[in-house]
Amino acid sequence: MLRSHTCGELNMTHIETKTTLSGWVQKSRDLGGMTFIDLRDRYGITQLVFNLETNKALCMQARKLGREFVIQAKGVVKERSNKNLKMLTGEVEIFVDELTILNKSKVPPFTIENETDGGDELRMKYRYLDLRRNPLRENMELRHRMSIETRKYMDSQNFFEIETPYLIKSTPEGARDFVVPSRMNQNQFYALPQSPQTFKQLLMVSGFDRYYQIVRCFRDEDLRADRQPEFTQIDCEMTFVEQDDILDTFEGLARHLFKTIKDVEITDFPRIEYANAMKYYGSDKPDIRFEMKFVELNDVAKGKGFKVFDDAELVVGICAERCGEYSRKQLDQLTDFVRKPQIGAKGLIYVKCNADGTFKSSVDKFFDQEALKIWAAKFDARPGDLLLVISGDTEKAQKQLGELRLEMGNRLELKDQKSFKPLWVVDFPLLEWNEDAKRFHAMHHPFTSPKTEDVEMLETTPGKVRANAYDLVINGVEIGGGSIRIFDKGVQQKMFKVLGFTDEEAQTQFGFLMNAFEFGAPPHGGIAFGFDRWVALFGGSDSIRDFIAFPKNNSGRDVMIDSPSKIAEEQLDELKLKVVKS
Amino acid sequence: MLRSHTCGELNMTHIETKTTLSGWVQKSRDLGGMTFIDLRDRYGITQLVFNLETNKALCMQARKLGREFVIQAKGVVKERSNKNLKMLTGEVEIFVDELTILNKSKVPPFTIENETDGGDELRMKYRYLDLRRNPLRENMELRHRMSIETRKYMDSQNFFEIETPYLIKSTPEGARDFVVPSRMNQNQFYALPQSPQTFKQLLMVSGFDRYYQIVRCFRDEDLRADRQPEFTQIDCEMTFVEQDDILDTFEGLARHLFKTIKDVEITDFPRIEYANAMKYYGSDKPDIRFEMKFVELNDVAKGKGFKVFDDAELVVGICAERCGEYSRKQLDQLTDFVRKPQIGAKGLIYVKCNADGTFKSSVDKFFDQEALKIWAAKFDARPGDLLLVISGDTEKAQKQLGELRLEMGNRLELKDQKSFKPLWVVDFPLLEWNEDAKRFHAMHHPFTSPKTEDVEMLETTPGKVRANAYDLVINGVEIGGGSIRIFDKGVQQKMFKVLGFTDEEAQTQFGFLMNAFEFGAPPHGGIAFGFDRWVALFGGSDSIRDFIAFPKNNSGRDVMIDSPSKIAEEQLDELKLKVVKS
Repeated sequence: MLRSHTCGELNMTHIETKTTLSGWVQKSRDLGGMTFIDLRDRYGITQLVFNLETNKALCMQARKLGREFVIQAKGVVKERSNKNLKMLTGEVEIFVDELTILNKSKVPPFTIENETDGGDELRMKYRYLDLRRNPLRENMELRHRMSIETRKYMDSQNFFEIETPYLIKSTPEGARDFVVPSRMNQNQFYALPQSPQTFKQLLMVSGFDRYYQIVRCFRDEDLRADRQPEFTQIDCEMTFVEQDDILDTFEGLARHLFKTIKDVEITDFPRIEYANAMKYYGSDKPDIRFEMKFVELNDVAKGKGFKVFDDAELVVGICAERCGEYSRKQLDQLTDFVRKPQIGAKGLIYVKCNADGTFKSSVDKFFDQEALKIWAAKFDARPGDLLLVISGDTEKAQKQLGELRLEMGNRLELKDQKSFKPLWVVDFPLLEWNEDAKRFHAMHHPFTSPKTEDVEMLETTPGKVRANAYDLVINGVEIGGGSIRIFDKGVQQKMFKVLGFTDEEAQTQFGFLMNAFEFGAPPHGGIAFGFDRWVALFGGSDSIRDFIAFPKNNSGRDVMIDSPSKIAEEQLDELKLKVVKS
Repeated sequence: MLRSHTCGELNMTHIETKTTLSGWVQKSRDLGGMTFIDLRDRYGITQLVFNLETNKALCMQARKLGREFVIQAKGVVKERSNKNLKMLTGEVEIFVDELTILNKSKVPPFTIENETDGGDELRMKYRYLDLRRNPLRENMELRHRMSIETRKYMDSQNFFEIETPYLIKSTPEGARDFVVPSRMNQNQFYALPQSPQTFKQLLMVSGFDRYYQIVRCFRDEDLRADRQPEFTQIDCEMTFVEQDDILDTFEGLARHLFKTIKDVEITDFPRIEYANAMKYYGSDKPDIRFEMKFVELNDVAKGKGFKVFDDAELVVGICAERCGEYSRKQLDQLTDFVRKPQIGAKGLIYVKCNADGTFKSSVDKFFDQEALKIWAAKFDARPGDLLLVISGDTEKAQKQLGELRLEMGNRLELKDQKSFKPLWVVDFPLLEWNEDAKRFHAMHHPFTSPKTEDVEMLETTPGKVRANAYDLVINGVEIGGGSIRIFDKGVQQKMFKVLGFTDEEAQTQFGFLMNAFEFGAPPHGGIAFGFDRWVALFGGSDSIRDFIAFPKNNSGRDVMIDSPSKIAEEQLDELKLKVVKS
């Protein structure tokens, strides 16, 4: 080794030890006859000392070192007079007697400090320099530790990690596939997996009983912020289980990760039906770090002559505590918020619960003090609170109020960054109607089992069928989702039919799976977690990009290596492909 | 759970326990008034008993169960009268009182037993059934355990597992890339990585110090037996190391895997220079489970008037112990063996060391008893031994004799399947001359560092430059290989030049790496292991295919899912691609 110790391990127990360190020059300071250099590696920072008086040549050499030079320094560990107790190595320094420059460095294009002056594009181009900064290094370490602990738990629960292929088959259902032209099988293509879904189900048919894999998945989607064309899943499947077995098993995983990584004990792990999540939070991924549950007002708001309410399918509101003194301007901001195109409400009704027990509302014309008092009672509102009410089609009104609830959570600082509130959302609808395509889509995917008691409705009222599907939500973020699967060929065929597949299409694309169901397929189910997102959540960030070593930008480009890029004509010829200039 | 126990856990401690089991019908037997069913799951087999007398309906139902039906059985654990002590569950059986068919099964296309009657193609098509067989299940479990233990060791050595991207950039150096057309960046392509080589080097530039990853790699090669278009590597890189540090660290990994997986203590871990591996074994991956080292005979064989030897650059032989009685036919077989086109020797000279101390050779005309006695002495041959001699150009003769040595190892059963003999082959040549292309190729890859003492020769006699490169070989199988890397931009440029890159080509393809070298790149090196091959070696097989859950066949096809396949015209249109019909 080009070092005897790392830059993070020397302390008072090493005084007078001879040591060799290698690392990067973080910074240097010349103070009179002394030069101090902070030497950095992955493990920490150690202070090097050069004395102009005792070794002039060496000290002069040290003074020429630039930031990010890679050096090797030999010397003796000494106690510092000026200790820095915030650092593990802050009580000692190295009196250097030999210095070797292992490699020079040009001046980096941005400062390599916790806070940097580099813009996004520049840091992406020099990602290898950005990764030197502590926050990114810590993110990668967090990711490593989470994968280690995930595997430890899964192994303890008898899951086998089994690798599934990356060169698979394109299927039009779901998002767009990345395809890979085959040279050996001309005019044919592989596809990169959007998930190992069918393979993990086949592994259950094979009797592997419990499978998991931390696995890359690919989706050729138009990238929104915080989507990546390649992302990582913790993919899991179990045999001979019912829904509760899966929830219990993966509550265990979540508790294990919270405990080992965040040192947090999760006591409560509520389960809520999808219908109630919508009814009380207007979201299928409610943030339950704060209450502010919806209260429905149809019975007291409709039939009082206010046309907006009378025409609405649903009148629903929330109570923002201690916001009764909101100014006109603040109320207008909230109205503007719900009217934003991406939220789409027509307007917002407010009721101020005044300190003196009276009420002031934007619908005073239709609702007198007595009526508003009844409203307030339904909210358990106290003097000083503010009621915010939205009306319209049920689903839309719920989603709009859900967004407003989150916005109020932000304004009132109710989203405690230190607090983690997981929950399961269960009983999702099996299908959702796609207005554009005029057909049903699978809400989860076509392999999700309908609830036994709802199977009959599949042919009569498919939109009402509930699925054995569930999502893990933490602090309003969907961390994972899964379902009990169909394992009967007949039900699977019926499902494909409801989704608008012809028998032939179903056979061409998923024949192998339906054939497999004929050879003793066991009941099974599973779940997949978005690993990037889970790491980001634990890292206290909304953005997954900083938790991926080499992410793509919003155009799907890696600007560091400049990819994608043109390929040679010979490569295209070998693949029997031609590009079409547009 | 649809079970209270697995089929592998019930024993004498569970007598009279009520149990619910779920699994597959392995086989059933009707014996008079009793029906016995072997119920199988991943964990084992448990015997179910149905009594015609006590519950006729149930027993009749059981008699209708076919092989591979999935059933749930409830009953009570009883002691068997007829125990099978070879099975963990062989002392008990279940008196069943409730039976549910969870799923039926058609008759499988081949028998699901340790030995099966299914041909290769059939078993590939129904891979999910083949995977039910014990040997394949055990292979997957072995693979799982090896990955768990690999990660345990790497984590204990402070390596971070960091995921590198799969959508990268095509580079013409090395094997052929699989490419992925980009829809968002039209007429441009990603490539799938042949290895994460440049990314792991960038991670060292980033200061991650120790990186590893169990990672999928892709090569679009014409498949030979036992090659797969996608395969898995244990990919590793370390900073501030010299060659010995890497060898020591990964001897540690090998010892850990041998100990935890095979319960074998590796005492000896020899290191041999490439030149000596060729000189003594005629191979850069010598199988040292047996000795049979080469002996060079130039000094005693040349200049005696035998033109074949006199014209040869090298005369070299092995001593096959106790083969002195080989018949004419046996000797002819050996001659035929070395003359096979894939080996390519012109002929084979033998010397029998007779029991009476005399010699009989195929070159008696040129070498008398005295001369042959000198030969025999050089081999330390004893009466009864057989000397086998090949001559020709040094490198060819060595490789030919190397093949013969392995063949003799087979014939004499010297390759003990239970014995594991790892070694490091070191000091590989940096470059190899490609006669077709009339230029040098990198023997390892273009990032391998020449030995410091040989750097000067890079411009004068590049063919003689040795690399800081090394391979891990176990029982004649190359399990891994790596090198100390170039970390200086100037040396890297020189290397690209020797390999025939123009400055512009080097910049376009690897500019990001050479730029990174200018910002404080540390000395680093690494290694990558062929995980599929290592698992196969531990599993006692030459073939990796049985250690991959869903492998491709020799045409690169997955015959189970029928991939690759045609894709929709709309997909091609979106990608701005046209297929060229041939």
